[in-house]
Amino acid sequence: MTLTYEDFPPGRLGTFGPRHVSREEILAFAAEFDPQPMHLDEEAARHSMLRGLAGSGWHLASLMMRMMFDGFIGRAASLGSPGVSELRWLAPLRPGDDVMLEVDVLEARVSSSRPERGIVTIKAVARNAAGEALCEMVSPLMIGRRDGSS
Amino acid sequence: MTLTYEDFPPGRLGTFGPRHVSREEILAFAAEFDPQPMHLDEEAARHSMLRGLAGSGWHLASLMMRMMFDGFIGRAASLGSPGVSELRWLAPLRPGDDVMLEVDVLEARVSSSRPERGIVTIKAVARNAAGEALCEMVSPLMIGRRDGSS
Repeated sequence: MTLTYEDFPPGRLGTFGPRHVSREEILAFAAEFDPQPMHLDEEAARHSMLRGLAGSGWHLASLMMRMMFDGFIGRAASLGSPGVSELRWLAPLRPGDDVMLEVDVLEARVSSSRPERGIVTIKAVARNAAGEALCEMVSPLMIGRRDGSS
Repeated sequence: MTLTYEDFPPGRLGTFGPRHVSREEILAFAAEFDPQPMHLDEEAARHSMLRGLAGSGWHLASLMMRMMFDGFIGRAASLGSPGVSELRWLAPLRPGDDVMLEVDVLEARVSSSRPERGIVTIKAVARNAAGEALCEMVSPLMIGRRDGSS
């Protein structure tokens, strides 16, 4: 059953995960996309502001995307997103972290220009097993309406 | 020679690239982080709002990070970034695109709480070979000052 706009009222949408993040994944992503020493080199990372090896913020954001796909986007009438209005990195993603993702719907409205779709603004917060917030993301998602697909 | 805060006055910082993006890369990133049909399946993508296979917006953002690393962050006294204040996906990233990245410094100021570092707000625009803007990103970067490292 496909989730439509009507399935995304304001409030808590769900909590997803845990997603285990290995040291190997952190190093592989960093080598390809963000080879700063604090993401790639244990010794350099120890002397950085992050005080130890930490995943790229772009890696964490991409993992959050995957957790949202597995959690609800993959079975929603998703029409993509025009962007992100807020992305804040709050604490380091560490090798071995088990990441949970809390997703809330902040606002849901029908598109005025395209009334067959809704715009659902979500806030996603990634936390480690200790409950510490690692990253916050606010993004509008475009989702088809139930009667728009018929 | 390490780039410091003083090397980032407001104005055009540089234009970087091109970075060729292959179909294989697009599929590999999508399979791992964003397996929506428009990023992974040629036939489904043709019928989507993107009218053909297109890379994940998170893939493009991660490629922009890599182009900034290669262009200037890799040789700067970079102290990371607290986040992104704007990330807008404007047009699809297509297989075979050669991406250029224009980077401007919007604002540069010394941190009031940590005067040994500067906060440099950059705007990065990714364009395809036709000059079409694919993604805009605005982000504050923390960069050490020249005399802060002595």
